[in-house]
Amino acid sequence: MPKTWAISGVDLHLDLDGTRVRGAFESALRDAVRSGRLGAGVRLPSSRALAADLGLARNTVAAAYSQLVAEGWLEARQGAGTRVAERAAAAQPPPAAPPPAAARHRHDLRPGVPDLASFPVVAWIAAARRALRAAPADALGYGDPRGRPELRAALAGYLARARGVDCDADSIVVCSGFAQGLSLLCRGLLELGATSFATESHCHRSHHGAVAASGLVAATVPVDAAGAVIAELGAAGGVLLTPAHQFPLGVPLAAHRRTAAVAWARETGAVVVEDDYDGEFRYDRRPLGAMQALAPDHVVYAGTASKSLAPGLRLGWLVLPPRLLEPVLAARRLTDGPGALDQLTLAELISTGAFDRHVRRSRLACRRRRDRLVSTLRRRVPAARVTGIEAGLHAVVELPAVDDELAVVRRAHDHGLMLEGLDEYRVGGEPRPAALVVGYGTPPEHAFSAAVARLCAVLARG
Amino acid sequence: MPKTWAISGVDLHLDLDGTRVRGAFESALRDAVRSGRLGAGVRLPSSRALAADLGLARNTVAAAYSQLVAEGWLEARQGAGTRVAERAAAAQPPPAAPPPAAARHRHDLRPGVPDLASFPVVAWIAAARRALRAAPADALGYGDPRGRPELRAALAGYLARARGVDCDADSIVVCSGFAQGLSLLCRGLLELGATSFATESHCHRSHHGAVAASGLVAATVPVDAAGAVIAELGAAGGVLLTPAHQFPLGVPLAAHRRTAAVAWARETGAVVVEDDYDGEFRYDRRPLGAMQALAPDHVVYAGTASKSLAPGLRLGWLVLPPRLLEPVLAARRLTDGPGALDQLTLAELISTGAFDRHVRRSRLACRRRRDRLVSTLRRRVPAARVTGIEAGLHAVVELPAVDDELAVVRRAHDHGLMLEGLDEYRVGGEPRPAALVVGYGTPPEHAFSAAVARLCAVLARG
Repeated sequence: MPKTWAISGVDLHLDLDGTRVRGAFESALRDAVRSGRLGAGVRLPSSRALAADLGLARNTVAAAYSQLVAEGWLEARQGAGTRVAERAAAAQPPPAAPPPAAARHRHDLRPGVPDLASFPVVAWIAAARRALRAAPADALGYGDPRGRPELRAALAGYLARARGVDCDADSIVVCSGFAQGLSLLCRGLLELGATSFATESHCHRSHHGAVAASGLVAATVPVDAAGAVIAELGAAGGVLLTPAHQFPLGVPLAAHRRTAAVAWARETGAVVVEDDYDGEFRYDRRPLGAMQALAPDHVVYAGTASKSLAPGLRLGWLVLPPRLLEPVLAARRLTDGPGALDQLTLAELISTGAFDRHVRRSRLACRRRRDRLVSTLRRRVPAARVTGIEAGLHAVVELPAVDDELAVVRRAHDHGLMLEGLDEYRVGGEPRPAALVVGYGTPPEHAFSAAVARLCAVLARG
Repeated sequence: MPKTWAISGVDLHLDLDGTRVRGAFESALRDAVRSGRLGAGVRLPSSRALAADLGLARNTVAAAYSQLVAEGWLEARQGAGTRVAERAAAAQPPPAAPPPAAARHRHDLRPGVPDLASFPVVAWIAAARRALRAAPADALGYGDPRGRPELRAALAGYLARARGVDCDADSIVVCSGFAQGLSLLCRGLLELGATSFATESHCHRSHHGAVAASGLVAATVPVDAAGAVIAELGAAGGVLLTPAHQFPLGVPLAAHRRTAAVAWARETGAVVVEDDYDGEFRYDRRPLGAMQALAPDHVVYAGTASKSLAPGLRLGWLVLPPRLLEPVLAARRLTDGPGALDQLTLAELISTGAFDRHVRRSRLACRRRRDRLVSTLRRRVPAARVTGIEAGLHAVVELPAVDDELAVVRRAHDHGLMLEGLDEYRVGGEPRPAALVVGYGTPPEHAFSAAVARLCAVLARG
């Protein structure tokens, strides 16, 4: 069987009923074109290839092609094979609806997404090629539910070095971002007998929602100027904290609270989940190491590439205490983790130092943005108070003169600026004074000044 | 702030306690090296960069570096910066345990994984580069929970053309392989009020287990020579079928059973999930289109790149009836899907025809392997009966002369051949006569003949 034709052209499915094969084939093909299932311009397989695919004589296929060319459904061009004719396309689908209002906004200062235009495309593609060539044959198989060993080894080194995490490659489970990690953790905690789990009273609503959806009772713990108020955790089976830079309030968890959280976990048998979502980004203050290192048997460290590279990679990792490893892996086996190629590529980026360079470059860029945001606001909107700015990719802009933060958010939207109010992140506790959570990492570099100027214009008017 | 130093070198975290900063820094660095947290050969940041990172005077860092070089923990080489000394490494970790017995096996004829050595590395990398360059700026953001629109559009065209699926891009949800898809479906069905869900009595145990873990009652439906016995489905809220090529028994679902399954779903309001895991691979028989096209409102079509490309990509897709779309998306929002890069790359491969060419090439290779397997077994083990071979990547080798298939599997293992018995896939119903499920797609091309020869040797001895 010559190889050439068998691999040429598109793959085509046709239903052939009855015994009049020629007629059935012809009308099946006609229907496929008429209904639009075969779109205008699609190149059909050669008659030889399709005949072999469908178990027909080649002449049968060739005759049907000729007939449909004659009828105008198909076009045969010398040397270009047989294609679906342009005019044969079914009635065009209705034009797409106009983009929603949001898509017309010109600036985005919502938190959570880094500047995607700075994603290191060239370095990533080069690392992917090297990683794929160097990978063992079975790297593209189903693989270890903990994730690729290359990535776990690279992460173990990186997390110890850059974040002070106490870990080895075997205690790491790679997951498809923090949301999957959290849902695996909730399942694991349920398995260990936990019945409730607390989030900070201000946090991503989706995290609080995921806890509730898992079957655990979703509690909350208040946050004050020293971070989460550990004394109020009570009997929760676990808590999700953001110790390096509270999301969204921006305070670090104070040293005495870190100690208290660990003591609480030790005494009650509960688990602390340390969401180190933006741990790579700290500026003026001494870096705060992961609190996981205080008590690796009681604290889960959770990291992600969503801020340091891009959320679209869907890559995150959990460093697990021994007793949680098996329950989390059991949950992991019921679903799927991230693709092996992205895992191998990130491992290569870390091992070659390209990841560190990218992080340092991004950190410098974000620090400069923060400085511009703070100085511009001070000059143009002196009433606003900017907090939570020692680290991370977002700042809290308190608006003492404003009663209704949602009105500010709406006014900004009307002026082409996407913003989010602090109350968007409240899942428990009392409302706080009006404030915005401003993500200064998001806009592309060339648009940052204009975005800040628009923010100032909206606030100055208020 | 000059950019050069801020992005050089590794990213390093050190805990600095107390007021004697120089001493604290020096001993923190010493501890990091001694404990192995900083591995031998790791290059440290320049003293200038680290000083800025840690908020120390540059002299403090430089003095500590000198001290540790003097003590032998670090090495400073002209032009090569400061590195952790080779001899400074902590006691080496104990040597890794010897590989488990399985890793010493030289041949693998277990089903489920295609020949990973044939993965189109060059085409994939080229497509990734093109896709990443062409992608809009927000492609690497969190994105649509249904998956990248580029991939959904490409899949809608491909599935209609190649598998006869009735779908548009908006009815597709991209997921991280079939396991995640199934768990999302189970959650969606629970949401719609279903209480039980059936798998075929022979299937992947993990699928049956995932149904049970979701909270649905996991039932089974028997399989005979015409496929799943639809009449015995009763009151299940849904059923998972493999209509094109029953896994593992290899029979197609007969036309009257397809009709019956659809009628059952229409009458009872249940959902049929069509797992088209190897639909691209059919040989002698007329291609069987997706049964989803018979009743798009009652049948979920589930496809995957695991057989056509590689399981390690962790890419699958669901084509959903309208009433299931929102419940499945709600479940999808609680976790994470596959990375955007792989999605964009597969879309590019499909759009340029490279995916079709790869499928046709793989199909031809697998058909040849199947022919070699069947003819070799016929000649060397005439007592064996090979079935389920019109399609797919595996065959059932019935062993009429054998009482204990597990003994055959064990003997094969002892001879360096990984095999699986049919009973490995039984989750309900009566045991069947002894048989093997032979995955002929798995071995690399150069090893295929030797793997088949070993299989024959093991069986001939029986």
